[in-house]
Amino acid sequence: MKVLKGGLENVPGYTFSAVKAGIRYADRLDYSLIVSDGICCGAGTFTTNRVCAPPVKLSRNRINNPIKAILINATNANACTGEEGYKNTLTLCADIASRLKTEESSVIMSSTGIIGHQLPVKKMMAKHPELIRSLSSDKGKLIPEAIMTTDTVPKMMSVSFSSSEGEFIIGGTVKGSGMIAPNMATLLSFTLTDAPVAKDRLNSIFKRVIDKTLNSITIDGDMSTNDTAIILSPDSGRKISGSDLNNFEDALNFLMWNLSEKLVADAEGGTKSVKIIIKGAQNENDAKKAAKAVAESLLVKTAFFGMDPNWGRIAAAAGSSGVLVDENKLSIYFEDIPLLINGTPVSIDANKLDNILTMADYSVTIDLSAGSSEALVLTSDLSYDYIKINSEYST
Amino acid sequence: MKVLKGGLENVPGYTFSAVKAGIRYADRLDYSLIVSDGICCGAGTFTTNRVCAPPVKLSRNRINNPIKAILINATNANACTGEEGYKNTLTLCADIASRLKTEESSVIMSSTGIIGHQLPVKKMMAKHPELIRSLSSDKGKLIPEAIMTTDTVPKMMSVSFSSSEGEFIIGGTVKGSGMIAPNMATLLSFTLTDAPVAKDRLNSIFKRVIDKTLNSITIDGDMSTNDTAIILSPDSGRKISGSDLNNFEDALNFLMWNLSEKLVADAEGGTKSVKIIIKGAQNENDAKKAAKAVAESLLVKTAFFGMDPNWGRIAAAAGSSGVLVDENKLSIYFEDIPLLINGTPVSIDANKLDNILTMADYSVTIDLSAGSSEALVLTSDLSYDYIKINSEYST
Repeated sequence: MKVLKGGLENVPGYTFSAVKAGIRYADRLDYSLIVSDGICCGAGTFTTNRVCAPPVKLSRNRINNPIKAILINATNANACTGEEGYKNTLTLCADIASRLKTEESSVIMSSTGIIGHQLPVKKMMAKHPELIRSLSSDKGKLIPEAIMTTDTVPKMMSVSFSSSEGEFIIGGTVKGSGMIAPNMATLLSFTLTDAPVAKDRLNSIFKRVIDKTLNSITIDGDMSTNDTAIILSPDSGRKISGSDLNNFEDALNFLMWNLSEKLVADAEGGTKSVKIIIKGAQNENDAKKAAKAVAESLLVKTAFFGMDPNWGRIAAAAGSSGVLVDENKLSIYFEDIPLLINGTPVSIDANKLDNILTMADYSVTIDLSAGSSEALVLTSDLSYDYIKINSEYST
Repeated sequence: MKVLKGGLENVPGYTFSAVKAGIRYADRLDYSLIVSDGICCGAGTFTTNRVCAPPVKLSRNRINNPIKAILINATNANACTGEEGYKNTLTLCADIASRLKTEESSVIMSSTGIIGHQLPVKKMMAKHPELIRSLSSDKGKLIPEAIMTTDTVPKMMSVSFSSSEGEFIIGGTVKGSGMIAPNMATLLSFTLTDAPVAKDRLNSIFKRVIDKTLNSITIDGDMSTNDTAIILSPDSGRKISGSDLNNFEDALNFLMWNLSEKLVADAEGGTKSVKIIIKGAQNENDAKKAAKAVAESLLVKTAFFGMDPNWGRIAAAAGSSGVLVDENKLSIYFEDIPLLINGTPVSIDANKLDNILTMADYSVTIDLSAGSSEALVLTSDLSYDYIKINSEYST
């Protein structure tokens, strides 16, 4: 597997466009389109929030169809917009389908941005000719920027992997820096490959990978109404199989984990990315629950921001998760430095610890000594800027 | 029922003392004692955190004994301190018991403050003669101050209620402004009464009241290792019964709700107290779950701080709680102003809404229209000062 420079534009078989439609703000790329040369198999994971946006409903309904195109807008989530919001999604997709001379059912849509406002459909429709006209493979570079909301940097990556059918490429882009919690895709994520993967394998591999990557990060514990992660693979040529599929999964996992790290690194107001590793849990479910409780504790996250090795808050958060925690068996490490071993505080070398606490990313390992299951959740710290961004970002 | 001036000092039958023991800081009241003239029945609720402090274990073990005294220290939680921490609690209580010439098993203890440090037992023992010597009924005034940690104001209250046996008094004090979540008493809370209530009635009434008061508030969703709420009632005289017990419960409920409001009003960095009211839930459990999800959402809490009527975040938080939420039936009100009715945004009078958003306390009602159950959780906003307090409060 090789990491390539750039993102989506490296994947053969797709074209892209992005325009300034003025959906909420003037003069920013906010409306974009991904079109496959042929027809694709798709797999997707979507928010489990009971309140979910029309584009999520539409894409969830259509993801098992043959897929030709993904239409994406930023700055307006088209969420909590009722019947009218759903009709707007249908209208936009239908028009794109007709211009692409493809089935209406092969176009899906994702939206991100403010909740509770109808999309400016006329404005958006007016941009459709430009979206179609400007389609080209190198415009893949524009997609990461066109889907951003409070993100401070566009996020993309691409890798190549070998198979018995030759070299294939996977390219991906993600957006999201708040309303992120490990209970679904937690954001918008679009991944493309030129490797032909059978639909059922694509589904199972994508689910496994998302579980270990996008579903294992948290920024603020808030679950979005619009979370969507989609992968497309051409429905043509000989499907890859056997060890080639393993190579594909490894490469996809590598790519999605790296994109997940980019998300947490760009967390709203975040200054740290901290891997919360639970070891020695009774079972995997317990491990995840405890990791999530620590990763989402406001007191733990403010301590990370304050560069304070406050293992007491970590122990309290793990204990509050409801999983079996015996404080007399609990051990806590910052990187490889133990702060607590079997419930007993360890005297520590403050300099060594300071070196860790000032790093932009490090790991905290909590050993429950109750079993052999493990889990990892990647979290950010909680800073003044998170408050600033979210108290000033207004309806 | 009448609200009295002052707090614990109004309750006949108890004496108090508080001293500066220098447990963590010089020159502050940090060690205090409550002693009943006779022997009391007690009832208590304690943290459900798996990591709980030695004083919690001791008090939980002893709360059903005849109770004579409560020993309390601030600034050191004596949590995550293992065997030694438990022995220290035993030692301190035993010495107080012997000085009071009472059973060791009739003294309970509460601690609050930093986690993971052993108590300075010698320093504390040295203050025992002074604690005993200075016991007096008017020193009840000092307890609220002596138990504070990051609280900015001492919190106390007292009420009187009538019964067929005459007038009785209930006095209470609470502390806590962070690590507060509605899954147990979430703090230290001491309530005294001169009304003789039978042990089993005291238990059931206290449990019901705590559920509706201290267990229905949240500040940061973090559950402490030391949460303790205790009530004492004299085990002497004719026990009150019948409608007198109802009067007692009403008065206790009123007192505890008011103390709960004081806690949220003094939330770390808080500028708002917001009542999150869920209506129309399928069952009470769902109502509580949804209320808690909204009350603990960082995005909702930062919006309250930013005085932004961001009902989209409220809908998203309710939807993410896992309870049945149909967005087409969802209605959201700030006080009596609807922002969303049956899933459709309502155009609002911005001035009227601004008047609400600038108030120090108001209610947000979320009607799920899925049933007839209700719940209320009182929450604070999330401000820069929460980050300041918790990133700078250091181990």
